[in-house]
Amino acid sequence: MSSNSLHPLHPLFFPASVALIGASSDPERIGGRPLRFLLEAGFKGAIYPVNRSGAAQIQGLPAYQNLMDIPGPVEHAIIAVPVPGVEAALQECARKGVRVVQVFTAGFAEVDAQGAEAQQRLVDICRAADMRMVGPNSLGVLNPSTQLIATFSTALNGLRPQHGVIGLATQSGAFGSATYGMATLRGIGLSRVIATGNEADVDVAECIDYLADDPDTRVICAALEACKDASRLRAALLKAADAGKPVIIMKVGRTEIGAAAAATHTGSLAGNDAVYDTVFAECGAYRAASIEDMLDLAHFCAVTGALPQNEQVAIMTGSGGIGILMADCASEAGMQLPDLSSGAAQRLHEILPFAVVANPFDTTAQVTSVPDGVTRVLEAMAAEDAGFGTLFAYLAHVGLSPTRFASTEKGLIALRQANPQRQLVVVMLSDPGVTQRLEAAGVSVFADPTRAVRAVAGAARMGRLRRQLHRLPATHGTQAPVAQALPVALTEHQAKAMLGDAGIPVLPEQVCTSAAQAVEAANRMGYPVVAKIVSIDIAHKTEIGGVLINLPDAKSVAQAYDTILQRAGSAAPAAHIDGVLIAPMVSGGVETILGIHVDPVFGPMVMFGLGGTAVELYKDVAFASAPLTPQRAQALVNSVRASALLSGWRGGPQYDMQALTQAMCRLSEFATRHAQHLGGIDINPFVVQVEGAVCLDALISTR
Amino acid sequence: MSSNSLHPLHPLFFPASVALIGASSDPERIGGRPLRFLLEAGFKGAIYPVNRSGAAQIQGLPAYQNLMDIPGPVEHAIIAVPVPGVEAALQECARKGVRVVQVFTAGFAEVDAQGAEAQQRLVDICRAADMRMVGPNSLGVLNPSTQLIATFSTALNGLRPQHGVIGLATQSGAFGSATYGMATLRGIGLSRVIATGNEADVDVAECIDYLADDPDTRVICAALEACKDASRLRAALLKAADAGKPVIIMKVGRTEIGAAAAATHTGSLAGNDAVYDTVFAECGAYRAASIEDMLDLAHFCAVTGALPQNEQVAIMTGSGGIGILMADCASEAGMQLPDLSSGAAQRLHEILPFAVVANPFDTTAQVTSVPDGVTRVLEAMAAEDAGFGTLFAYLAHVGLSPTRFASTEKGLIALRQANPQRQLVVVMLSDPGVTQRLEAAGVSVFADPTRAVRAVAGAARMGRLRRQLHRLPATHGTQAPVAQALPVALTEHQAKAMLGDAGIPVLPEQVCTSAAQAVEAANRMGYPVVAKIVSIDIAHKTEIGGVLINLPDAKSVAQAYDTILQRAGSAAPAAHIDGVLIAPMVSGGVETILGIHVDPVFGPMVMFGLGGTAVELYKDVAFASAPLTPQRAQALVNSVRASALLSGWRGGPQYDMQALTQAMCRLSEFATRHAQHLGGIDINPFVVQVEGAVCLDALISTR
Repeated sequence: MSSNSLHPLHPLFFPASVALIGASSDPERIGGRPLRFLLEAGFKGAIYPVNRSGAAQIQGLPAYQNLMDIPGPVEHAIIAVPVPGVEAALQECARKGVRVVQVFTAGFAEVDAQGAEAQQRLVDICRAADMRMVGPNSLGVLNPSTQLIATFSTALNGLRPQHGVIGLATQSGAFGSATYGMATLRGIGLSRVIATGNEADVDVAECIDYLADDPDTRVICAALEACKDASRLRAALLKAADAGKPVIIMKVGRTEIGAAAAATHTGSLAGNDAVYDTVFAECGAYRAASIEDMLDLAHFCAVTGALPQNEQVAIMTGSGGIGILMADCASEAGMQLPDLSSGAAQRLHEILPFAVVANPFDTTAQVTSVPDGVTRVLEAMAAEDAGFGTLFAYLAHVGLSPTRFASTEKGLIALRQANPQRQLVVVMLSDPGVTQRLEAAGVSVFADPTRAVRAVAGAARMGRLRRQLHRLPATHGTQAPVAQALPVALTEHQAKAMLGDAGIPVLPEQVCTSAAQAVEAANRMGYPVVAKIVSIDIAHKTEIGGVLINLPDAKSVAQAYDTILQRAGSAAPAAHIDGVLIAPMVSGGVETILGIHVDPVFGPMVMFGLGGTAVELYKDVAFASAPLTPQRAQALVNSVRASALLSGWRGGPQYDMQALTQAMCRLSEFATRHAQHLGGIDINPFVVQVEGAVCLDALISTR
Repeated sequence: MSSNSLHPLHPLFFPASVALIGASSDPERIGGRPLRFLLEAGFKGAIYPVNRSGAAQIQGLPAYQNLMDIPGPVEHAIIAVPVPGVEAALQECARKGVRVVQVFTAGFAEVDAQGAEAQQRLVDICRAADMRMVGPNSLGVLNPSTQLIATFSTALNGLRPQHGVIGLATQSGAFGSATYGMATLRGIGLSRVIATGNEADVDVAECIDYLADDPDTRVICAALEACKDASRLRAALLKAADAGKPVIIMKVGRTEIGAAAAATHTGSLAGNDAVYDTVFAECGAYRAASIEDMLDLAHFCAVTGALPQNEQVAIMTGSGGIGILMADCASEAGMQLPDLSSGAAQRLHEILPFAVVANPFDTTAQVTSVPDGVTRVLEAMAAEDAGFGTLFAYLAHVGLSPTRFASTEKGLIALRQANPQRQLVVVMLSDPGVTQRLEAAGVSVFADPTRAVRAVAGAARMGRLRRQLHRLPATHGTQAPVAQALPVALTEHQAKAMLGDAGIPVLPEQVCTSAAQAVEAANRMGYPVVAKIVSIDIAHKTEIGGVLINLPDAKSVAQAYDTILQRAGSAAPAAHIDGVLIAPMVSGGVETILGIHVDPVFGPMVMFGLGGTAVELYKDVAFASAPLTPQRAQALVNSVRASALLSGWRGGPQYDMQALTQAMCRLSEFATRHAQHLGGIDINPFVVQVEGAVCLDALISTR
């Protein structure tokens, strides 16, 4: 029995007994397939077929007409009856004291509102009985360690699961089958597989939580279509990170943006997948782009047992061209190739007098004429003081001749044992036996140089993410307390006043209702000033000519007041006008954009970008979950390419980074307090100056 | 015998007789291995071992002390003797009338200058004898169709070549072995393999030329480290394109930029690989990022026999999640998913009443309960009027059960035959026999959805490139006639005058040598004007305060004249000063950057980008070989993302595209005329206005 027997999902994977409600004698039907798989695999626990028909035996096992007829306890039940019978079957499970039920039957919330109601009744039954449910519309569960094959996936017809250390939790059954199939064909073993379907109760996050506890699982793969409970997902990912287990996630399906969010520019930029990217990264998980990438990375982690210590690599190669290919790929993937030290250079020079010491280190064909040349070169490189986390060896096709390769194989294994802190990755064509022996000793083997580098880059990136996890305060998200209610609609002036109260620098501006008042305000502020229309009904002030800038004197302010009101009156005669805003004119500085997107699932996210084409054209923006610390605000700024413009770009000045990050923190705290009623915020531009920074325009959308 | 027997490389691949000079009895030595491979494979031609030792037999064959002793003719000779003996052996080949020699021996130009001289002597011998040479330092040649295994690659120890339609030409032997090995392990056959080594005579370009002619070869893979003869490479790529043969190239190794080129900003942006990217694309070749990508794409092309007609795809899937994964990947890779027509929607609705018709089309599990559901759905989609070139079918793991899959297999093959104009790509886990039968019928099979989409995207992109090949005039490049000599160094004013003469719009500006002359010039031009220092010794005018803009009247012009001379005098007292340039002040318009980089190999390339951060920060620039046609100039502009700013960006105006592309054409012609003495040109900014465009600053670097 595994040591996490207290986890609520334990009976799902380690049941002493399984009942199959809707069991079929036909081994090809949904109610027959799991029974056949359990029998073929030799599941050791009790198996109880249940079928209303009253057959004495099903597929050779004693059958029961009702679950209650089963003499002993039932820990894990599978329901595979048509929709109308599901509710009654579940009630029977509750009466019987079943601990976990899988509902394979489809036709619930995924179909229509009526299905959603029926699904809610299933949840209510489970809650009342303290019973857990996977599904409905789920594909099943595999535990190769106990031969529990509790699924109806036809992938099991041809492919028997191999036991390994990679756990797989997926919402989509088809996605799970595809991943399971590709892993099994590649000889990659799995510890657990679960498809959660409609997730009425158990979701992928809870499965990740289980796998983080599970001692059989060292690496976690997951596939999400949509997350409904953000805090559960964050907590599970952080738990896995704390347990030192890599989590590799695929997220398919586009994010739907709530109507409120789309009202802001920030909301539209957050669209699609930026929010998932952000949350996964903050919680130390790696987002894979394809099933193959996910398996490459998971297998690498399973073989090495640890993530690379850093993103620095050294490369030994017998082919200059392939060394450069790997080096280019490594640097594209964000890794660095430090120079080798003079000590290493000397050692390498002793082994290969004519080779040029560099990284990548090209041994040339010379290495083949030196006894144990490959091993000795790698030893010299591994003894290097430079702190690279991964050592690559490109060895062409030598692994295809196991006998000739035997001494190098031994050398590689010894090298890995002597250098547990460095990952050793061999790229070569290889006999399966050679690969297996090397990988059992923690030496990773890849055939394609590029795939090898990409997998290591993914693992190293995950390592970096895990050194900077973003743990949110407990009050985060839509459950945050409401500091104050927000009006339904806010003018620019009201928005800025509110942000000013929250600690974000704004200008000393004034809404004026007469030309005289405008002049008086301008006199007080000093010239030049700007004048803007203030109306809740006019969102695009510039387009109607409602903004006049660089007004140099009292006369021009008085004129501007009249002109603006006149333009507003003719462009939007029905608009309610509050007056004209007078504010000091700001020039110079760098225009940035600060934003808040309140994601319906993940809560308030801060956006940062630079003004101009950087955001519009190149989508050069980044997001982080609110609230921010100053360090995290700084990291968010740094993650935007255009932020180079803030720090001495082409001999220009250093702009006030502290003022910027402080404003971002204040904004993130404001958003956290108001998450419940906030749609989103755009502060555009937020001008960062050499000293100080100031918000020049702001839009707050509420909901 | 193949039909291209007139090609100079024909005897390399189809020799009636092969002599091995330096043949060894030890089948593991470089001089022994090719002999063993030829014998093991059963090469049908004559094999003559040659060794000075005078042994009567080598590896069971009659041996010869001298090449001249061989009774019959020798078409193809291999030299595998140490460096000091190579020259004499080559002379013997010349005397014997050998048609093609491979020199396996290393230690020539790749080592040092002495080696380069020795290599040149080998070339001279070959030229004099009208004999062709591969190498030195080459790894050999394979022709699986005649069992010619004329290589010493140890990859052949374990991996026997399979005959196929993909030809592989590579400079690096190691790269060739890696590619050959990976292809062979995957069961991908090859028509010819050649490693060209030092390329003293035969280069990869000539091999591509041969493969373009070769009727056994339908797809060409190539790997370059450096190209020495641009026009030969361009011509070979265009010949392959005209022959309808896809060319997939890997280029490894960084481009070295000549000193002259690096003197311009354009030159530094052209650095690394932008020039290769441009030339490959212009000649219709696809540049692959990894060996696996190259093989995926080559195999796809080999199976389908044609490139997709366009970049539009339709996707049928049984899994919503995987459908979206594929759709996302397709659009990231530049492909489009057109909507299905109402006709197709109706047909699909008849087959699957509950499915939602969209692209991707998710059949849901419902399709399994419809007889021949998959085939009927695909038929309906293939009958679609929308012009998509590729139809994907995601079929999970059904191919693993050949019996159950038999009827679908038949349906897919019939569908492919009925729709020769559309590519049919099945993504599924599959039994090797199933895959083989489908692929033999032209139906492509992939296991990983993402790899399938990427391969199709690559092929479709190649198809697009081939519809817009860039054929240069014969006078292109560094061999172009010199219209006029260029001075060693040009001032801004001289540069602009020269560009103005070439038809590029410049301002009516004047170099003035007194304040009075400056005022007179300004009066004539109209105010405001700008004033700039003119000195060949001052490259960075702004940094010394040598530029004053927006001068509104005569007084300020006179002052500016004095100020600028004073500043230049104190900042650069030794500089030779020509005077102060007076020019009209231009405001408004969009700042673009036009440039010329004269690549030492590929000749003059035009660069286009937009001003500001687009170029500096996002490297949003594109190159094209000079000279340009107006169509190609327009395509170059369109390929830059920031060019959206020129065409009604966010409600802004349409800028004068014709003035821009015309200037680009004139610039490209100027560069072509002066290629021999030109280092590079930066026109920055080139301001494009609503009507017209003008060069505001220019730098011409000569060499």
